[in-house]
Amino acid sequence: MSALTFELKHKDKNSKARLGKITLPHGEIETPVFMPVGTAATVKALKPEDVEELGAEIILSNTYHLYLRPGHEVIREAGGLHNFMNWNKPILTDSGGFQVFSLGDMRKITEEGVEFRSFIDGSKHILTPEKSIEVQTSLGSDIMMAFDECIPYPADREYVKRSLERTTRWLERCVKAQKDTEKQALFGIMQGGMYPDLRRESARQILEFDLPGYAIGGLSVGEPREVMCEILDECVDELPENKPRYLMGIGSPDYIFEAVERGIDMFDCVLPTRIARNGTAMTSKGRVNIKNAKYEKDFTPLDHDCDCYTCRNYSRAYLRHLFKSNEILSSTLLSTHNLHFLVNTVKKIRESIKENRFLEYKKEFYDNYGY
Amino acid sequence: MSALTFELKHKDKNSKARLGKITLPHGEIETPVFMPVGTAATVKALKPEDVEELGAEIILSNTYHLYLRPGHEVIREAGGLHNFMNWNKPILTDSGGFQVFSLGDMRKITEEGVEFRSFIDGSKHILTPEKSIEVQTSLGSDIMMAFDECIPYPADREYVKRSLERTTRWLERCVKAQKDTEKQALFGIMQGGMYPDLRRESARQILEFDLPGYAIGGLSVGEPREVMCEILDECVDELPENKPRYLMGIGSPDYIFEAVERGIDMFDCVLPTRIARNGTAMTSKGRVNIKNAKYEKDFTPLDHDCDCYTCRNYSRAYLRHLFKSNEILSSTLLSTHNLHFLVNTVKKIRESIKENRFLEYKKEFYDNYGY
Repeated sequence: MSALTFELKHKDKNSKARLGKITLPHGEIETPVFMPVGTAATVKALKPEDVEELGAEIILSNTYHLYLRPGHEVIREAGGLHNFMNWNKPILTDSGGFQVFSLGDMRKITEEGVEFRSFIDGSKHILTPEKSIEVQTSLGSDIMMAFDECIPYPADREYVKRSLERTTRWLERCVKAQKDTEKQALFGIMQGGMYPDLRRESARQILEFDLPGYAIGGLSVGEPREVMCEILDECVDELPENKPRYLMGIGSPDYIFEAVERGIDMFDCVLPTRIARNGTAMTSKGRVNIKNAKYEKDFTPLDHDCDCYTCRNYSRAYLRHLFKSNEILSSTLLSTHNLHFLVNTVKKIRESIKENRFLEYKKEFYDNYGY
Repeated sequence: MSALTFELKHKDKNSKARLGKITLPHGEIETPVFMPVGTAATVKALKPEDVEELGAEIILSNTYHLYLRPGHEVIREAGGLHNFMNWNKPILTDSGGFQVFSLGDMRKITEEGVEFRSFIDGSKHILTPEKSIEVQTSLGSDIMMAFDECIPYPADREYVKRSLERTTRWLERCVKAQKDTEKQALFGIMQGGMYPDLRRESARQILEFDLPGYAIGGLSVGEPREVMCEILDECVDELPENKPRYLMGIGSPDYIFEAVERGIDMFDCVLPTRIARNGTAMTSKGRVNIKNAKYEKDFTPLDHDCDCYTCRNYSRAYLRHLFKSNEILSSTLLSTHNLHFLVNTVKKIRESIKENRFLEYKKEFYDNYGY
């Protein structure tokens, strides 16, 4: 039996939004779903219990970081990532591709894979499809991602075409390298840049491997929102309806709404926790910069419409004080709120799809948030 | 009725160690007690629930820091410090004296009080006995401390004598400035440096105010442990038996044992949380430096004898990884453990006093810890 089963439960009557359920070795996930990011085997500033309490059903962790530190051998010997970090629900790991390609001059791409230098000690490494699968197997994630090339924006057509073909060849090597499809599900990744016909070509190629799920890579890499929407309009339907669809690296609420409307099921992003550490909260009325002097004596919660741990117990005045005092608790409380906000917004999206009122909920959200 | 009542429950048969109970507006405390420090209205890296779960019954917060940021007016308007920081058990606030005296060239002492510059913006301030009581009244702590001069070590006899007399005059002004003795208990502070006769003189002077509790200040300021023990031998008995005795700024386990043996009831220190943030754990077998390479694949808990949240759920290998990755969770998990270790050690001290085996427990602890 495959490590992943997907049940398509309902399709919105007025858009391509869909409701589903993914079953994995470590539990079930309702989709659409937002996955908090726990790069280095921890969702920054939070205990696993905090992450669970705010409603997260699955987290993402980064192969590149864990390969370099503490090393996948350490995590394998610990009994896998779930055990190592004390998180018992599903985990998705990326392939490490995105991070090594982001290194710019620090890496070299060949047909074999990507050579790069460690950001920790400058040591030389090579990440290949086989190596990525080996590392992800050691981590023991529920879902692992194929090793692909994520193309920057803009990129010329010829490069994009050659790259997507290599991504397909790498996918074939990933599929061959995977030993146990019952323990971990492997997702393929559609590339093709901002060229709809190349996107379709990429889809055609990767679908031949009949994988349990597919991702769309190479979007939200700097292009305008409209361009992303156009590409999604053109290419989501290329992916099979009966398998989960994952749009990688998306965390801004408007991007999530636009993608759900076009039939996407899964999202992840560091945005909510990163801006939290910088003192910014996402609320139902838009962003709040907690550093602002006007919150000095504001004894109301961050968000009146929120029932997260932070909003139940602390005032804006206290949160401002913590941030200005460089207190660690500031990151914990704002990260808790921001992740709760996104996870809970996606939960409300699911409810709206069930009742065929997704587009109304989207409009209501945009009006309140100030988009 | 006074804000504080103290019940002396039992005296160890083989030492001066004593068991007691302090009742305060926000709850009861068993003594001896260790108070975690929450300098800026937060015990660093921990949520109040974490602090409660690890067994703390009272915390200490710093008047100097809160006066400068966010300002005591903000906290007063928030309904007091308990409300502001979401901690519903007792709080003790210091007077701000220790911090301003530590500023060295940045402050000037007069009979009126201490002039100093803010570490935040360089602005000029004056802290006086009246001001300290005003600030602590705004904070609404259960126990507030008199504004005293904490003398460095070593200090010459003449200076110490003049200083302790000024401390007494300042205590008189503190007592006059306090408006409501039913809401907050004011403790006087014995000074006198390392001169037993001056300690006795200081005690004689401050006891005249018949306060609900007394502290010993100006110890653990750099003198050898033996000197501290000698001073305690000479001066603890000067304090009334039926009132709590608080030795300020002590957090090293051996200092706590030595002081309990000599009849001290209350302790506080930043040590356990500060060394936690630097990657050092206190365990039943002594200190553990989690950075050490030998813990890379050590999948055992920090301390086999510990049932804290950290030891129940995480390995040394994971804690080492978090620390080396500069992850915030590292501070949270090590602070939780260290505070649990100290609070729980003091709890075991209480049990040993109850059974008249304090000295045996002390020996057992020292043997294991490696003193």
